[in-house]
Amino acid sequence: MKNAEWSGFFADAKTLDPDAYITLDYSFECVGAPDLAAAHFCAEQSTAQWRRVGLDEDLRPRFGARVLDLEVVDSGRTAFSYDAGRRPDGPVSACRVRVAHPHGNFGPRIPNLLSAVCGEGTFFAPGIPVVKLLDIHFPDAYLAAFEGPRFGVQGFRELLDIYDRPIFFGVIKPNIGLPPEAFSDLGLESWLGGLDVAKDDEMLADTPWCPLAQRSALLGAARQRAESETGVPKMYLANITDEVDRMVELHDLAVANGANALLVNAMPVGLSGVRMLRRHARVPLIAHFPFIAPFSRLEHFGIHTRVFTKLQRLAGFDVIIMPGFGERMHTSDDEVRENVNACLAPMGPIKPSLPVPGGSDWAGTLKRVYDNVGSTDFGFVPGRGVFGHPMGPRAGALSIRQAWDAIAAGVDVDAHAQHHAELSAAIRAFRPPADAPAVAPSADNPAGENRTGENRTGGER
Amino acid sequence: MKNAEWSGFFADAKTLDPDAYITLDYSFECVGAPDLAAAHFCAEQSTAQWRRVGLDEDLRPRFGARVLDLEVVDSGRTAFSYDAGRRPDGPVSACRVRVAHPHGNFGPRIPNLLSAVCGEGTFFAPGIPVVKLLDIHFPDAYLAAFEGPRFGVQGFRELLDIYDRPIFFGVIKPNIGLPPEAFSDLGLESWLGGLDVAKDDEMLADTPWCPLAQRSALLGAARQRAESETGVPKMYLANITDEVDRMVELHDLAVANGANALLVNAMPVGLSGVRMLRRHARVPLIAHFPFIAPFSRLEHFGIHTRVFTKLQRLAGFDVIIMPGFGERMHTSDDEVRENVNACLAPMGPIKPSLPVPGGSDWAGTLKRVYDNVGSTDFGFVPGRGVFGHPMGPRAGALSIRQAWDAIAAGVDVDAHAQHHAELSAAIRAFRPPADAPAVAPSADNPAGENRTGENRTGGER
Repeated sequence: MKNAEWSGFFADAKTLDPDAYITLDYSFECVGAPDLAAAHFCAEQSTAQWRRVGLDEDLRPRFGARVLDLEVVDSGRTAFSYDAGRRPDGPVSACRVRVAHPHGNFGPRIPNLLSAVCGEGTFFAPGIPVVKLLDIHFPDAYLAAFEGPRFGVQGFRELLDIYDRPIFFGVIKPNIGLPPEAFSDLGLESWLGGLDVAKDDEMLADTPWCPLAQRSALLGAARQRAESETGVPKMYLANITDEVDRMVELHDLAVANGANALLVNAMPVGLSGVRMLRRHARVPLIAHFPFIAPFSRLEHFGIHTRVFTKLQRLAGFDVIIMPGFGERMHTSDDEVRENVNACLAPMGPIKPSLPVPGGSDWAGTLKRVYDNVGSTDFGFVPGRGVFGHPMGPRAGALSIRQAWDAIAAGVDVDAHAQHHAELSAAIRAFRPPADAPAVAPSADNPAGENRTGENRTGGER
Repeated sequence: MKNAEWSGFFADAKTLDPDAYITLDYSFECVGAPDLAAAHFCAEQSTAQWRRVGLDEDLRPRFGARVLDLEVVDSGRTAFSYDAGRRPDGPVSACRVRVAHPHGNFGPRIPNLLSAVCGEGTFFAPGIPVVKLLDIHFPDAYLAAFEGPRFGVQGFRELLDIYDRPIFFGVIKPNIGLPPEAFSDLGLESWLGGLDVAKDDEMLADTPWCPLAQRSALLGAARQRAESETGVPKMYLANITDEVDRMVELHDLAVANGANALLVNAMPVGLSGVRMLRRHARVPLIAHFPFIAPFSRLEHFGIHTRVFTKLQRLAGFDVIIMPGFGERMHTSDDEVRENVNACLAPMGPIKPSLPVPGGSDWAGTLKRVYDNVGSTDFGFVPGRGVFGHPMGPRAGALSIRQAWDAIAAGVDVDAHAQHHAELSAAIRAFRPPADAPAVAPSADNPAGENRTGENRTGGER
């Protein structure tokens, strides 16, 4: 620290009121002295110019973000991890920093929170072209101002009357292009086969060729028929992703028609729009994940997925669909588990959200997901694994339930398949050839009856 | 192309109705055959499973996204540009692809547009861990459903009665921590010195220590006083970034109090929230850029800034503040110019937005910005360059106007400074030492009187 002026952006955590600060973990790469870079980093995200010209004042004690801890991981690199527009003009240091940011600077408002902790101050701090927000920790005093999930995991389970197993979702496919009647027929079949939740694809909106009004009326009626035939609760998860000024209206329309859960694409709509909907909603809200990967996939730049899982929970989602296990989703198993944990771990007064790690799932991937999650508190969300099943969606849904029966009984899934035709057919249709490359596309499968669902299908598809 | 089934995701542009498709340019890196990867890419972002099991149907002709053009830039790489979670299991091909996406799949709705063109289909297409959306082109038939800017460049100029020069903005500093009275005093000084627009920082929200009601009342009155004293229109740009369900209320409050333009952080609020506000707003809307860098900075991954500039214009911003010229903002001059162009170029029925390239500006950087933009259709937005001026903000504003007088008269700015004390003082205070590193932080400048504004100050700060 060359200059005592900058020491005002450092603090010992013990001297700060823990209720007044959000704690942030970042990695960053800089040229020059890491402690100075860290001080600038805090200045830029809080009170960058902390006194008026000519006046003897100091706004930092109340308004300054502070470096609590700075670790120089490596100080002699010759390049940044990514070419971010310029070459370093000196040795590059890779650092980890923990920052205390006074939330009184902006208040319990998601857009202002985002602007402060991952806005211009973070990504344009001088000398720091490469930075990633790794984690965020809120004091209960801040969390208390948020509503969080209305139902949470327990409330969601109560709606479905299911307490001892994962929740079985399915994305009705074909996802884009079917008229409401055909779409509804597929949903009914899947419920009758054993799905708990039949859902719209995240790309299916309120369109002229499949209007939400007609779709939700047909699916709402089909859901009630399925409940009546099976004797158990079912859920139709309608996608109301749309302009924010339509969401309350679409909520009311879909729920009146019998949709009993609603899907919203969190980032495309904006977390603040979700929070607005949460204050109005009378049914569970389910998040889908478009537009998170572009700022979270790379190891050393952007914003970690766990930050966004926490923010989605804060915004009020009861269920969070996320990129799941396996190489297909470009997300390490550890990272998926961290996101599962971000849904379920204690978070002050905010209820847990049900994690749904998705990625080209079918009956044969259920055990992997269960083993990785380590409990039954998750949702499982095949698409083609149900709706591309060669015997149809009822059999597709049944194959999932058969796989779970085997897992719950401690029986090998393949052995169980020998006496269960639907599970057996799923294995023949969806298990990748043993020698297939892990994710390279395979061309020899027509769209309706693909055999290598693992290889070809996106996310929950 | 191994399998004729996949040819349904290719098309000759001449065979498609141009009004029915959005055109998208992507770069991507894949293992395996590029044409198959491109076909999968189109499938995943449109009708991934394009027929029901057992039925002879094909949803692709109407609903399929199509490869119009595929260029393999390099086919023998041994690694992806970024380690995106796995090592390639074969040679990596770097490609450029132009895709036609039928907008009837989702309609003129920003969240659904984002979900389709940069959602799960884009970032989780099989075998494509590295992808960037480079550009987006809308047919007029699609644009016609959007409002776009209410004022545009011409309307914004009319409000200020300025037609022959750039618009001079300034961010009132200290940005965080001042009470409304002190903040208002600074704004008044800056208007009297020659600023057209005095603005709130993008991090300054409606907080207990500086409530928007009180701030906008004081600044609104100060603005009117400045107009009366100077005889020219002035603008107070109030930041109403907040939860979306407060924005209409805050609009009404601020405008009633005398704010005559409003700042919104586009991504933190969400572009759909902005569009909602646009339908209500009676004053110009100005965008700030937090949360765009994390998905746009890297060359080969994410979403290009020009896409977001176009989308911000589409959402209805009259003015778009963006990372500007020089190394400080980690954005190449070419990229800034492309964003300027995305604001100003014809876009069907959508009015132009005024570009404001920002980045540690002061009087001495004005000529660089003007030369780079190539016209007077831009805004210039210093922070400390006005409010950190050693003679105070009135002199800071005057130094900017003096610099412009020199530029407009074809006089060297340094020569002009010899007879203009404010400009001369700005040069002494803010010009980086000739031997200073380009962006490394410099420690020997206390916050109030920094001499190397170029080095230390973030964005418009």
